Amino acid sequence: MDYHRLFSSDVPSFMRSPVREIFRKVDLSAICSFAGGYPAAVTFPVEDLRRLPGLVLDKYGTKSLQYGATQGVPELREAIAARYGVPVSKVQITTSSQQGIDVCTRILCDPGDIILTTEPTYLGALQSFKAYRADVRPISSCHSEEGAARRENLKFIYVIPDFNNPSGETMTLEERMEIVKLARELDVVIVEDSPYRELRYSGEEVPTIYSLAPERTLHLGSFSKIFAPGFRLGWIIGPEELLEQIYICKQALDLCPPVFDQYMATEFLTSGALDANLVKTKAEYRRRRDLMVSLLEKYMPEGVKWTYPEGGLFLFLTLPEGIDTINMYDEALSKGVAYVAGSFFFLDGSHRNTMRLNFSFVAEEKMEPGMKLLGEIVKNRIHGNKAL
Amino acid sequence: MDYHRLFSSDVPSFMRSPVREIFRKVDLSAICSFAGGYPAAVTFPVEDLRRLPGLVLDKYGTKSLQYGATQGVPELREAIAARYGVPVSKVQITTSSQQGIDVCTRILCDPGDIILTTEPTYLGALQSFKAYRADVRPISSCHSEEGAARRENLKFIYVIPDFNNPSGETMTLEERMEIVKLARELDVVIVEDSPYRELRYSGEEVPTIYSLAPERTLHLGSFSKIFAPGFRLGWIIGPEELLEQIYICKQALDLCPPVFDQYMATEFLTSGALDANLVKTKAEYRRRRDLMVSLLEKYMPEGVKWTYPEGGLFLFLTLPEGIDTINMYDEALSKGVAYVAGSFFFLDGSHRNTMRLNFSFVAEEKMEPGMKLLGEIVKNRIHGNKAL
Repeated sequence: MDYHRLFSSDVPSFMRSPVREIFRKVDLSAICSFAGGYPAAVTFPVEDLRRLPGLVLDKYGTKSLQYGATQGVPELREAIAARYGVPVSKVQITTSSQQGIDVCTRILCDPGDIILTTEPTYLGALQSFKAYRADVRPISSCHSEEGAARRENLKFIYVIPDFNNPSGETMTLEERMEIVKLARELDVVIVEDSPYRELRYSGEEVPTIYSLAPERTLHLGSFSKIFAPGFRLGWIIGPEELLEQIYICKQALDLCPPVFDQYMATEFLTSGALDANLVKTKAEYRRRRDLMVSLLEKYMPEGVKWTYPEGGLFLFLTLPEGIDTINMYDEALSKGVAYVAGSFFFLDGSHRNTMRLNFSFVAEEKMEPGMKLLGEIVKNRIHGNKAL
Repeated sequence: MDYHRLFSSDVPSFMRSPVREIFRKVDLSAICSFAGGYPAAVTFPVEDLRRLPGLVLDKYGTKSLQYGATQGVPELREAIAARYGVPVSKVQITTSSQQGIDVCTRILCDPGDIILTTEPTYLGALQSFKAYRADVRPISSCHSEEGAARRENLKFIYVIPDFNNPSGETMTLEERMEIVKLARELDVVIVEDSPYRELRYSGEEVPTIYSLAPERTLHLGSFSKIFAPGFRLGWIIGPEELLEQIYICKQALDLCPPVFDQYMATEFLTSGALDANLVKTKAEYRRRRDLMVSLLEKYMPEGVKWTYPEGGLFLFLTLPEGIDTINMYDEALSKGVAYVAGSFFFLDGSHRNTMRLNFSFVAEEKMEPGMKLLGEIVKNRIHGNKAL
């Protein structure tokens, strides 16, 4: 049977995640992987999770096992609303923050509509945007002649202001205000993707874009980094008029987010266990970040630069011009170290001399040998480059 | 801010579920509701669920809390494959069976593409189909002149062959073979939505459509009626070429189904607890079905007909011509009994003299007073109808 004849026009635009494809092919536990974006298993609140399911059954009874409201269970919406200081009516629970990105794109974008994004940007967002055949462009392009001509097709600006995946960088208040100014000028929505916001290890908190432009911002949060990613739970905070369409759309997507998991998240959050676990999680990741930075200083040759992340799970490396990290990848993998080539996170595939390094997931004792190896590979490439 | 300017072209086609809207407005626990499609809370395996979370943590450790494979965790895919006698490569786990419907539509339908359906049909499916602006038509329409002319837009046939929601009816083997014959003739896919298949209370099992046409059938299953709907888990069994596109699409939708819940479902299934619970569940629902049928016989006036469901959660009532169940609804609700008007389940809103009755959710002691009330309301309507 020829299935291709039957596929929708979206299908050819579906994009495999290069990161997930790496995971498919390689047993990452056998090597030193700085590639994924997984949280460290030691941060998972296992002891709480031995207690929470029984507590949920005792407290909420069988309603924790039944279908729930499409907007999310009231108890969790209220807990999120209280934590972030917004009314409950502005909170929609999602079945993962990835679903948040997907559903925002769904209600806003037709094929060919324009999404502006900072770069480098999150791959999973690009997957969603491209799957709806949106025309994703760097923010600067809106000032071009063509950008100005197609203003009515401009739908939203996508940003990851806190500890960007992949760059690890955080937008300053001034940069956030610039985004808001631009969005107001263009009269478009801002999708503020903020899964790492609670993971700050140093520096000062910067106000959310949502707080600067609540009338046009859809702020996406996630439980994956503050609870556990095995529960697919996130939230959207935004204007009721936008949430109403997201709510109707979500009925058709999956009826409601997982109910039992929502009650566990509610209890985890409201009991204070989340905050207690967050203190431990941040201490763990702070140590790992500092270790990675010290290893970079120790093993990377001159001419290599990296970002210093104040939070999150990643930092971004820039090698001397002419070194191609896609090209270098097979060598690295065969020698036992993995990363994600930075050019994947750029719309035009440029910045081929960059890479994303994750410091949350790799076993700590593997970090030094892994970084030493990576440093040697880079050194050889620089040397070979000069020899050419 | 004017958000409407920014909405995608899909948004005006989003359809609220009339059933979910009823739930929003009324406290159903205060009345006798035959309206919803909720499983009975007494069928939830609460005792197993006191044991399963700890067991999952012991057996699978932190991998049960981490991100998982987009196709679903291997252990659950294998358990489903073994139960239904298919290779693992033909199994995709979904974040609810509703997501199964959504993602099948997504990979197959452009706006204006045609989906053929039996009638009456599942409202949640219509919500998904319409949200993609598909042109949903009764099966018979493919033989019309226009249907024949637009053959290349015909993408799939949607059927609920076992204990249809809302009608409660089951397709015979001959009817299934007719669907297969038609699908082969038109060279289209069949989406076989089968959330109730394991809930048979009488009669003989009929082969799945998937078993008759595995090359073109996407068979959708659900844990909602055999485990608990609070875990949003379902599965798709189908040809690898179609599952491959569903897999890539699902990466962008929500990365992976809930992992902890998948391991609980795995243990529930493979330990035999699912089958043990199913025996109890079916005994419970069989009794409720028989009670509802006996109450219909006792309280419904002459001229009222109903289906006899061999399984599932619903039966379908046909009142004498001229009685309008939408019109009658407010009266019923104010007197304390709820149902879903049958015309919602027909594409053209016809069959206004029908209604869907659910026998799984309402408290058993409310069934007789509720049915008595409904019988009286119907009697009065018939009387009023004659008087006109």
